[in-house]
Amino acid sequence: MKKVTWIQGGVCAPKGFSATGVHCGIRKNRTKVDLAMIVADKPCNSAAVYTTNLVKAAPLLVTAKNLKNGIAQALICNSGNANTCNADGEAKALVMCEVASKAAKVSPDDVIVASTGVIGQPLPIEPIIRAEKNLRETLSREGSIQAATAIMTTDTYLKEKAVLFEIAGEPCRIGGIAKGSGMINPNMATLLAFLTTDVVISQDALVKALKDVTEDTFNMVSVDGDTSTNDMLSIMASGMAGNKEIKVGTPEYKIFENALFQICAKLSREMAKDGEGATKLITCNVSGASSIDSARKIARAVINSSLVKTAIFGADANWGRIMCALGYSGAKVDVNAVSVTFASSKGKILVCQNGAGVDFSEELAKEILSENEVDINIGCSDGASSVTAYGCDLTYEYVRINGDYRS
Amino acid sequence: MKKVTWIQGGVCAPKGFSATGVHCGIRKNRTKVDLAMIVADKPCNSAAVYTTNLVKAAPLLVTAKNLKNGIAQALICNSGNANTCNADGEAKALVMCEVASKAAKVSPDDVIVASTGVIGQPLPIEPIIRAEKNLRETLSREGSIQAATAIMTTDTYLKEKAVLFEIAGEPCRIGGIAKGSGMINPNMATLLAFLTTDVVISQDALVKALKDVTEDTFNMVSVDGDTSTNDMLSIMASGMAGNKEIKVGTPEYKIFENALFQICAKLSREMAKDGEGATKLITCNVSGASSIDSARKIARAVINSSLVKTAIFGADANWGRIMCALGYSGAKVDVNAVSVTFASSKGKILVCQNGAGVDFSEELAKEILSENEVDINIGCSDGASSVTAYGCDLTYEYVRINGDYRS
Repeated sequence: MKKVTWIQGGVCAPKGFSATGVHCGIRKNRTKVDLAMIVADKPCNSAAVYTTNLVKAAPLLVTAKNLKNGIAQALICNSGNANTCNADGEAKALVMCEVASKAAKVSPDDVIVASTGVIGQPLPIEPIIRAEKNLRETLSREGSIQAATAIMTTDTYLKEKAVLFEIAGEPCRIGGIAKGSGMINPNMATLLAFLTTDVVISQDALVKALKDVTEDTFNMVSVDGDTSTNDMLSIMASGMAGNKEIKVGTPEYKIFENALFQICAKLSREMAKDGEGATKLITCNVSGASSIDSARKIARAVINSSLVKTAIFGADANWGRIMCALGYSGAKVDVNAVSVTFASSKGKILVCQNGAGVDFSEELAKEILSENEVDINIGCSDGASSVTAYGCDLTYEYVRINGDYRS
Repeated sequence: MKKVTWIQGGVCAPKGFSATGVHCGIRKNRTKVDLAMIVADKPCNSAAVYTTNLVKAAPLLVTAKNLKNGIAQALICNSGNANTCNADGEAKALVMCEVASKAAKVSPDDVIVASTGVIGQPLPIEPIIRAEKNLRETLSREGSIQAATAIMTTDTYLKEKAVLFEIAGEPCRIGGIAKGSGMINPNMATLLAFLTTDVVISQDALVKALKDVTEDTFNMVSVDGDTSTNDMLSIMASGMAGNKEIKVGTPEYKIFENALFQICAKLSREMAKDGEGATKLITCNVSGASSIDSARKIARAVINSSLVKTAIFGADANWGRIMCALGYSGAKVDVNAVSVTFASSKGKILVCQNGAGVDFSEELAKEILSENEVDINIGCSDGASSVTAYGCDLTYEYVRINGDYRS
């Protein structure tokens, strides 16, 4: 992968963007901001991908309509309520667009709208309406951290990244914020992540890059196997970097796609690492698979297995559970030619070769698995496809959080 | 459903069967029997269904060979070691057949062999060889409880059922034992369950009935979404009830199938109720679905959702998670016409209608969900298909058990 430079500033790092996050009152805790807004100086070529869940949050339906012309200029998102499975959901999502329209002085149909939180409870819209002035007054070039904080639910830390790269000598940037951390499963446009960029890029190229990169980044994250109703990933391109317009199939497109991949992969790792109750990031690297589809199936099955997740929580080198998950994944794989290696900053250890156990030091395995970032490397002998999936362990804390989420 | 009579005796209730369970030493704990045997007085028409996992336990491969001619006379099963992912697995499974052959005085290729426990550790075969005498001497008409105990792993109680029914005035019986309680997921021949019956039945009819009934019983159980490498369900028919031979498509077949369904459904419920760490049995009843396939997809997705399972653990009426699971299930369903009702011995409560929330008493909901058997009833408006799935809650105890299973 081509080197990129990590910079500060999140969604405000690219030229032409402001952001904010305020406490409007959907959450009772006044110290937790709960309403985020991102605003571009001018209308942006924009794109989004959405959950594949049949039950879709009302704001996603409104966003899809607003993005039909490929243009957006602002984004508004509340946490604390998903605005899903509510009869008045779309009407309220439209009100949110109006609020952003007034606060940011943009057209209401150029607004991307999102919500995250509990499903099936009416969204309190009054606090959002009342927040318009506050949003307008706090909007700033340094507001990314506030926006990233405002979209958090059970996340324990904010996720904000920005990347700097060059296109024909012109410095370009992509910034992003994201939130986890439950109801997260691959094979969709996972979770909430909002990206900004200042590149000049054609609408086609932006849509294609977002879709392709999502497959190998956000769609390879799993916290608990539940595909949310509210997942959305969006990107707005201000075009203020002044580069020559990026078009599909050009060298510039490759450079942009690489930078986009790197920031999405970084945010995906963060998402998995901060999965509900997680103590460990689990990265599953599959290589030598018969096809990309089989590689993905194996990586997802392993990363999703409750038995693998609890074993890693317990730092137990119970590799049989990995073979088990591989076996039911639906992948085309020669199970008698599979190897499994655990790795972390403490070293690496081969535990299974040709589909059967090998002698290994339980002490070293325990030491490796006790780190807070653990790799499961699965080697197949079926082809040349490889893939990486991101997940986390399953812990007492996950059960505690989700045993009383609404209360 | 036609009424059946529940009787005592487990796998020894049908005429012509003996059983035993002994401590051979695979488990260090001498108070836990770890080797089960079931023996028929004469060769039986027999059938089995197996896991769909590509990684298959060695004993399953041996059983499939032995059952090619449709005949078995004995069954041997150890707990404490899965005999899976071992290079010498098949050779040792064949030794287990030899042991049963000598202990039960049957042909070694008329033996059904199974193992359950940790994957990927060499099976200690010496203790099993040494147990031959003990197996032979303890075999008895009252041995079902010992056999049921010997196949338990993390199960907290033994599962043993027997049913009495009549075919043209002749009393007939089916008995069964089963074990859970982790690595259990629908869409296969789930877990270990061994059935016996004394009906006279054609091989075709036995195979068909077992396959069909499995779809709506064992295959509708989920504890943790992990499809085991060792799942197997078998049945041996001694033919000693003296009824007219049961053939496919006859009224007698229907009677037999009903009795088989009832004992399999009962064992399935027990399996779910005693899922690893479970405090609650969750039964998900889906009705009005567009097809049986869609009904199964919905019921399985709901019963498998970690978020639904933890909510029920916390007695939290968080029905949005049920709608979410329904939405990603892959079922063809009009999500705006779905209703959700919770029910238990404390009453029932409607929480969602036409895909949106309704006002309900949180106090009553909490009371209903605090019982140890909870129903989730999902009404669709797409057709006339209905199905029931069995699962359990996800608890701290599940994490504890699986965080240090091997140790």
